[in-house]
Amino acid sequence: MEKADILIRNCTILPMDDRGVIKEGLIAIKNGKISYAGREAKAPPIQAEKTINGRGKVATSGLINCHTHLAMTLFRGIAEDKPLEKWLKETIWPLEAKLKPRDVYDGALLGCLEMIKSGTTTFADMYFHEDQVAKAVEKAGLRAVLAQGVLELDHKKLGEKLLKASVNFAKNFNGFADGRVTVQLGPHTLYTCSPPLLKKVRQKATELNVGIHIHLAESEETVNLTKQKQGLTEVEFLEEMGFLGSDVLAAHCIHLTEKEMKLLARHNVKVSYNPVVNMKLAQGTAKIKNLLDLGVAVGIGTDGPASNNNLDMFQSMKVAALLQKQYYKDPTVLPAQTVLKMATIDGAKALGLEKTVGSLEVGKKADVILIDFKKPHLTPIHDFYANIVYSASGSDVDTVIVDGKLLMENRDVKTLDEEEVMLKAQKTAINLPKRKTYFQVY
Amino acid sequence: MEKADILIRNCTILPMDDRGVIKEGLIAIKNGKISYAGREAKAPPIQAEKTINGRGKVATSGLINCHTHLAMTLFRGIAEDKPLEKWLKETIWPLEAKLKPRDVYDGALLGCLEMIKSGTTTFADMYFHEDQVAKAVEKAGLRAVLAQGVLELDHKKLGEKLLKASVNFAKNFNGFADGRVTVQLGPHTLYTCSPPLLKKVRQKATELNVGIHIHLAESEETVNLTKQKQGLTEVEFLEEMGFLGSDVLAAHCIHLTEKEMKLLARHNVKVSYNPVVNMKLAQGTAKIKNLLDLGVAVGIGTDGPASNNNLDMFQSMKVAALLQKQYYKDPTVLPAQTVLKMATIDGAKALGLEKTVGSLEVGKKADVILIDFKKPHLTPIHDFYANIVYSASGSDVDTVIVDGKLLMENRDVKTLDEEEVMLKAQKTAINLPKRKTYFQVY
Repeated sequence: MEKADILIRNCTILPMDDRGVIKEGLIAIKNGKISYAGREAKAPPIQAEKTINGRGKVATSGLINCHTHLAMTLFRGIAEDKPLEKWLKETIWPLEAKLKPRDVYDGALLGCLEMIKSGTTTFADMYFHEDQVAKAVEKAGLRAVLAQGVLELDHKKLGEKLLKASVNFAKNFNGFADGRVTVQLGPHTLYTCSPPLLKKVRQKATELNVGIHIHLAESEETVNLTKQKQGLTEVEFLEEMGFLGSDVLAAHCIHLTEKEMKLLARHNVKVSYNPVVNMKLAQGTAKIKNLLDLGVAVGIGTDGPASNNNLDMFQSMKVAALLQKQYYKDPTVLPAQTVLKMATIDGAKALGLEKTVGSLEVGKKADVILIDFKKPHLTPIHDFYANIVYSASGSDVDTVIVDGKLLMENRDVKTLDEEEVMLKAQKTAINLPKRKTYFQVY
Repeated sequence: MEKADILIRNCTILPMDDRGVIKEGLIAIKNGKISYAGREAKAPPIQAEKTINGRGKVATSGLINCHTHLAMTLFRGIAEDKPLEKWLKETIWPLEAKLKPRDVYDGALLGCLEMIKSGTTTFADMYFHEDQVAKAVEKAGLRAVLAQGVLELDHKKLGEKLLKASVNFAKNFNGFADGRVTVQLGPHTLYTCSPPLLKKVRQKATELNVGIHIHLAESEETVNLTKQKQGLTEVEFLEEMGFLGSDVLAAHCIHLTEKEMKLLARHNVKVSYNPVVNMKLAQGTAKIKNLLDLGVAVGIGTDGPASNNNLDMFQSMKVAALLQKQYYKDPTVLPAQTVLKMATIDGAKALGLEKTVGSLEVGKKADVILIDFKKPHLTPIHDFYANIVYSASGSDVDTVIVDGKLLMENRDVKTLDEEEVMLKAQKTAINLPKRKTYFQVY
């Protein structure tokens, strides 16, 4: 008799490899990895300490959020329906200058809680005091790819200081939390980092063998700025300086020319598509169909909760599909299965984790979610993918497993005290505007 | 000591009149109506049979879904990511021809259950066998404005037959279910109903003193068809025949000229904006900001669950805002409070029910929802409206009251057996494709 730590029985499995829907499925988890995922009838006899009844539930790979600024949960709803520049300069930046490390921890922990409760198991984050985010990830039990942000804003010394901090963070936290944390460098954008600084980031990333997380082509205004300054588009300019590579994760990618899209494909650059925030801030629509046709790996991100205003990847999946159908005036664009792939295996590719997670295959880390389909809005079941992408919300996630460890069962979070996390964050968030500046970057 | 049937204590109230946010609020309900809604400190002493603790919860007016085809829950996910015409002709119409009255009841009851669980208390529906929808509404305890659909498709006799049925339904069901059901006539569109039939519909509606629910300017193709045939745009054509009036509810209103928008405003026509389905079927974007600027009453609709694919008005509210911001390239368009108004008091106006429901004012029918704000994604609270519109989902609704009657408390539905309703609908939906045609309309 084979042994396992956790068995999930009688569930429908969407493994997100090429096997399609598996009914009457069984998932076995051993030593943090998937040791079986397939038809129960074909499985060998397996014994386990813990058995979960998956009847009426759908198991799939934990969702991957490819772009966020987690600690910004603290600013959720604080400056609504404003133009981007006003939003940033009048509200967000002054508040960020007040953030102490402990505040970032409080905000990040709230974000981790929200992600667990909505089925996200891995996320890519870029922010300040990123060590605090790493500690929140460790406590919550999630998986993450973290980058300490770098920006310069015409202050060369500031740029150097922040790059050093970003490099130090990368050195100290790669492999943190039993390997659940990996790292990237986090240059903010082309308009907040000078070309020499970007070159240094590239060198350091190569030297350390870590990736780079950057905002790219998000607003028309800043894209035009680069064009005026450099005589090149953003992607052309990055290519010329040797910045592009398969380890670069580019968030947004809205205002790209055909040529730029081809360059991204040629250099195997990864893209995070963030549809909700792109619409909310009225920045435009990323041409995701074109990118997919060119073979670019595209994941989905929520962006920070100050501008989305939640971390629900189910909502972002639906809006991801809606926005592309609308943009291309074609309801067949980005069908449900493609979207769920983007939120799982393609997201894993975008973060360089496709050998570790992103699908329910034997040998991969056991990052599994169970979605409770016994809900009015998920009835009837004609199409599992459509019900997940178009009908479900994060609150339909019932059980979350990361690295073979149960983080939530029957919506009961095991690793965090929900009430305490919420109270702490609420208190921090409400007090913050009244507090003094802690570190004035801008 | 005053007496009430239900008291809700210690809640935050968003009454959706001009009073803004009321903290430490008290709501008293007596004989199905609101007898107090305001600061608890200013309330007279009131005794009640039933007291609900509203601590940590936000009370607002029940949401109003201005356009759906409820029984189409049965087709949820059955034909995804297809072009509209293919979707209709190859899947939906052949399936609809198989629907017996009892099937419509099963589908409508599932829809009612989904609406209760996501905070919708009133909806406008157009479909066949609408008497069955009325019966589902009666059982569920909801409020609805129902229209039996009329179409002709070049078969004059069919048109006359269906108009007769629509009129009969209106006569028999106006005021049904203790007055919670009111009625409209339901001519499908300008391209499925001939001008003489539309004129008859108008006459009958005036004669019966009931409203009209119609699809308007949904697809560019059919809008062009009318223009070719009649030499006029849809709204111009309807105006010329004397069709327009304050009792007309026009769903979609996407492809409108400036002149048409002014005509809608002049005739006080009501509009249902259905952003999710408009994006999903790639039909275009309704210019809601322009309509609001002209003073048109605009509500929000989900449309049928076969094309949305849910009835969650919270999701539709968020997408409603996102789509307008994106369309006008302006993040300040359609702020959260405006959107919540559209889903409550403006929705009530759109359905001619603004004297009855749509806000928490003394004397109005008690249609109240409580939203549980003790959730990670609704923390912190900087802005109640933003948290509801941009962060919440239907599953955050905790308690639903319609006509002073508790339909759901702590997410436990009182009027329906959830499991039974879901099982029945699932069975009906799965068997339907195998069954014979019952009534071939097309």
